Amino acid sequence: MRLGVIGGGAIGLLTAAYLRKFGNEVTVFTRSPLQAKQLRERGVTLHRNNKLEVFSVHAQAIDEVVELNADILFVTVKQFHIEDLFQTLQQKSFIPQAMVFMQNGMSHLNFIKELPIHSLFIGIVEHGAMRLSGTEVEHTGVGIIKIGAVKGGSNNWDDLWKSISHKEFQVVVLSDWLKIMNRKLVVNSCINPLTALYRVKNGVLVSNTHFLKLMRAVFDETVLSLELDDIEEMWNEVLLVCKKTANNRSSMLRDIEKRNETEIDAILGYVLSIGEQKHLKLPITKFLFESIKGIEQEEREKVE
Amino acid sequence: MRLGVIGGGAIGLLTAAYLRKFGNEVTVFTRSPLQAKQLRERGVTLHRNNKLEVFSVHAQAIDEVVELNADILFVTVKQFHIEDLFQTLQQKSFIPQAMVFMQNGMSHLNFIKELPIHSLFIGIVEHGAMRLSGTEVEHTGVGIIKIGAVKGGSNNWDDLWKSISHKEFQVVVLSDWLKIMNRKLVVNSCINPLTALYRVKNGVLVSNTHFLKLMRAVFDETVLSLELDDIEEMWNEVLLVCKKTANNRSSMLRDIEKRNETEIDAILGYVLSIGEQKHLKLPITKFLFESIKGIEQEEREKVE
Repeated sequence: MRLGVIGGGAIGLLTAAYLRKFGNEVTVFTRSPLQAKQLRERGVTLHRNNKLEVFSVHAQAIDEVVELNADILFVTVKQFHIEDLFQTLQQKSFIPQAMVFMQNGMSHLNFIKELPIHSLFIGIVEHGAMRLSGTEVEHTGVGIIKIGAVKGGSNNWDDLWKSISHKEFQVVVLSDWLKIMNRKLVVNSCINPLTALYRVKNGVLVSNTHFLKLMRAVFDETVLSLELDDIEEMWNEVLLVCKKTANNRSSMLRDIEKRNETEIDAILGYVLSIGEQKHLKLPITKFLFESIKGIEQEEREKVE
Repeated sequence: MRLGVIGGGAIGLLTAAYLRKFGNEVTVFTRSPLQAKQLRERGVTLHRNNKLEVFSVHAQAIDEVVELNADILFVTVKQFHIEDLFQTLQQKSFIPQAMVFMQNGMSHLNFIKELPIHSLFIGIVEHGAMRLSGTEVEHTGVGIIKIGAVKGGSNNWDDLWKSISHKEFQVVVLSDWLKIMNRKLVVNSCINPLTALYRVKNGVLVSNTHFLKLMRAVFDETVLSLELDDIEEMWNEVLLVCKKTANNRSSMLRDIEKRNETEIDAILGYVLSIGEQKHLKLPITKFLFESIKGIEQEEREKVE
């Protein structure tokens, strides 16, 4: 089976490296022709525990692809690029058999459900990875990828998941993936926007008594909107993630610092949209959402 | 009449300079013995429009005062130092005839009403001033001081106000001072916490569409809590202040940057306490209040 990875960011490069490491033929589809050229010439370099390995991959800029040499596409671009990406695929009449969407947040779920693709999966990525350059990625935390079948997830695919799953890159199929996505969304809702707003590391949300109180307020609105059970257990999980990743800067904080667009739409935007359907008032979530949007706007203006 | 100014900050030095300029005998009471010594030796230097004038003043550290050489005290320390200050005065049995409280915010009003002082006034300071050193102040914006009689404000005092009022340092007595304090509180509630949270200049709250929306949310909760009329007129005033002071950093932002304690208790703390008495929910105000408290805590820890 020919595997394709869309996106040359940290998760894209990490996925490509491990898929290739375990013997598959892999094509990386990037946005920039330059990155595709570099990947063709140099392969992907995977750093872990101060060791490095290089893997040869096929690579092409998505706009320059003539023929889609992939039966299954792992989509690792940010949630806000998915609609554009799908337009490109459609214009070229590229319809893979299956796609795996590996985004944070949940706001893309409704969109992908409607895609004319036979088998659609979501992949919940629990790895830590940092892109070092256009061809190098560091695997900073070994985790797991949880696969959920959104549509057409027949047993036919089980062999594939088994074949790509290995010790440092486990892939498991879960039936309760929606619950797990919800839980990940809660963690992201609590940690990402507040760390980006106050520009603090994850651990500060627990060590600072005022920020902890505010994180609980965000948590309460999020679980109210999503109508989740096991609330106190989930709160403990949020606290645990903050403590375990105390010295990390969240992805949203890093996006703000790099003046990139953040995933706020996919995270709090989704919580707000679900809340609106239920006519819930979520004043803190709304405030935080607009704050991050405002900070994004300021950072953009600094660049221009 | 012997005039005393408590506090050697920007407003304290500005007030001392102008009171002295127009012929009064003035004593400045400072916290630090060093600043008192410097003021005795060098006087107060007043900078305005690139000119400077020096005025001799008496000066003493408040803890070292043996005899209070003042009939009326202008209190310019921050609101959170007032209770400590009054304890010091009481221990020394210093009871002036009159005191004028020139703080931002309103949370000190209830406390000062109970003081065993014959005549109590509040002074609403609309000057721009910046302390350049322990003995130098720049008058950055000529405004006005509005006096309101909280207690014992008989006509006996009118001559005093007239005698200290001059073109660059106007002092006017107002009967509707409570309304004016409320309006100033609304402006402070809208501008100070948000600029400190996002670390932006005042003008950004109007130019950034997201921040503008959030400022309106803060405004709505503030006027709800204070039960004010003329709401849209007041909103226009808030916008006008943002535009007029577009390139200024608010006092709260400057306090955060200098790792000083902010006036958040006097501003949003007061709005929240009034709201609580009325059983109002003010989620945005509460969020903003805790945010500034949390940022203060973080900044303190950086110092320690």
